[in-house]
Amino acid sequence: MTTATTEPPAKTTLPRHPLIKDGWFREINDKCFPGQAFAIKVSEILHTSQSDFQDILVFQSESYGVVLVLDGIVQCTERDEFAYQEMISHIPMYLHKNPKKVLVIGGGDGGVLREVVKHDCIKSATLVEIDKTVIELSKKYLLEMSTAFDHPKVNVELCDGFKYLKQVRDWEYNDKFDVIITDSSDPEGPAEAFFQREYFQLLQGALKDDGILIAQASENVWLDLKYLTKLIKTAKSVFPNTNYCYTMVPSYTSGQLGLIVCSKQYDLNLTIPTRLPTENEQGLLRYYNPEIHSSFVCSSNLGKFND
Amino acid sequence: MTTATTEPPAKTTLPRHPLIKDGWFREINDKCFPGQAFAIKVSEILHTSQSDFQDILVFQSESYGVVLVLDGIVQCTERDEFAYQEMISHIPMYLHKNPKKVLVIGGGDGGVLREVVKHDCIKSATLVEIDKTVIELSKKYLLEMSTAFDHPKVNVELCDGFKYLKQVRDWEYNDKFDVIITDSSDPEGPAEAFFQREYFQLLQGALKDDGILIAQASENVWLDLKYLTKLIKTAKSVFPNTNYCYTMVPSYTSGQLGLIVCSKQYDLNLTIPTRLPTENEQGLLRYYNPEIHSSFVCSSNLGKFND
Repeated sequence: MTTATTEPPAKTTLPRHPLIKDGWFREINDKCFPGQAFAIKVSEILHTSQSDFQDILVFQSESYGVVLVLDGIVQCTERDEFAYQEMISHIPMYLHKNPKKVLVIGGGDGGVLREVVKHDCIKSATLVEIDKTVIELSKKYLLEMSTAFDHPKVNVELCDGFKYLKQVRDWEYNDKFDVIITDSSDPEGPAEAFFQREYFQLLQGALKDDGILIAQASENVWLDLKYLTKLIKTAKSVFPNTNYCYTMVPSYTSGQLGLIVCSKQYDLNLTIPTRLPTENEQGLLRYYNPEIHSSFVCSSNLGKFND
Repeated sequence: MTTATTEPPAKTTLPRHPLIKDGWFREINDKCFPGQAFAIKVSEILHTSQSDFQDILVFQSESYGVVLVLDGIVQCTERDEFAYQEMISHIPMYLHKNPKKVLVIGGGDGGVLREVVKHDCIKSATLVEIDKTVIELSKKYLLEMSTAFDHPKVNVELCDGFKYLKQVRDWEYNDKFDVIITDSSDPEGPAEAFFQREYFQLLQGALKDDGILIAQASENVWLDLKYLTKLIKTAKSVFPNTNYCYTMVPSYTSGQLGLIVCSKQYDLNLTIPTRLPTENEQGLLRYYNPEIHSSFVCSSNLGKFND
């Protein structure tokens, strides 16, 4: 009797992540939002890694499509990402009368780029992303979000947004930007510097005189009003014409996310779009329209931030 | 040697609830919102019972104050209840030029009553609640919400809202209501009939000609657009002047809740309050103001519900 040599059974190393338990991902942060958690049921973990900059998790969910999580915080889900991408992109784009050059800082998933290139008037859209892994993963797993990376008007710069802006400061005026969109991650991680006065000064230096800036505030009115008030004060110290606005995204903490929109022009009313979407453009949008713009950009007497 | 007789250690029967595990309450509903759950950390379970109508849970949470849960669905938390109570109350109250008689159907926690009595112009506010246990528990645990039960203008009727409206149908015209607020629980439980055409017809019969109705829609645009569209069609078949509106409440599913506001008057613009809050009234409010009213009551060309 001979015994056949058998290979030991292949070790199946299914990916695991400490925030996924019993098949549910839970967004928990005892410092920023203690005592509450949004949970999404996981069908399959697609990717986990630690990049040079952050912890990355991508999973297929039961009802939110593919979900991208950075440092434990949901960045986007296929189900509701348009509510974020459209608002952070089209609020500044329609506030500018004729945007040609657009800069996106962060936004490695590509969703903002996808929205920006819907404006036929633009000549270029530059994405500055520090973490190339996010772009690679988006191209692999977030197919609806990463469509614009190959668009002829798009350039991608793999570098730190801060460093990039310092270069732009020394550019010729005509090379500066019409619209800048800061789609960073939250201030606890690699994006911490994006929420300080120096950053807003660099942004001011990179914008033309009629330029529009929008920045993800990483907070909302239900979580940390004190921080938000301070952030808006910081922005106002550089851009006196600054409004708080927000968008509603179920998979973000408390179901909404604050944005800060700024103009160098004192007399531009940020609550009303300067241009209206063409019929063709409006047909490409699922969330943004001029009325939502006016509803979600808070006029000065709404906020407690305008003291 | 004698042995002292000792009592067996008292059995501590700490209250438990099947939706609370590892110290967290999770709102899970595989039918209405599969694959997602909002979780709140529990400090102490204050009450659990099965009333004649529904499963009731009251707990002290770590960061949302006291939480009331009926049939597994969060009804209110002390932290964010004002965002719901103020909007469902003041949208119809400020749409009416001079509301005297107000009817609240459901709303046993008392929060809507608390808002309604802020209007000095009212002569009476009647609450029709089927489940007296909810009122009793609110008086015991939700002290900020239940302040108006003893208000001299308030009457409480412990009965079924449907039956009550059938009686009102036969009242003299002058005894009918200026504003009706339907603050029911969700259509899966005892409140199922509140979402049918017959209910809207009864409401119409209970309102004066310039009366305003608002109804909790139990849904939002992120969850079941089909159901919401059907519900708005049902309302429109009785009240042609109907608008969808909503409010943002972090502890509600997807962070928001739909409302339906209706008028018998064809030409009343529901997106603009008819009266403005007095300075004194505005000082009592944390969420509602005329601009939020116009932002959250969707005008006809916003919705996909107006076909």
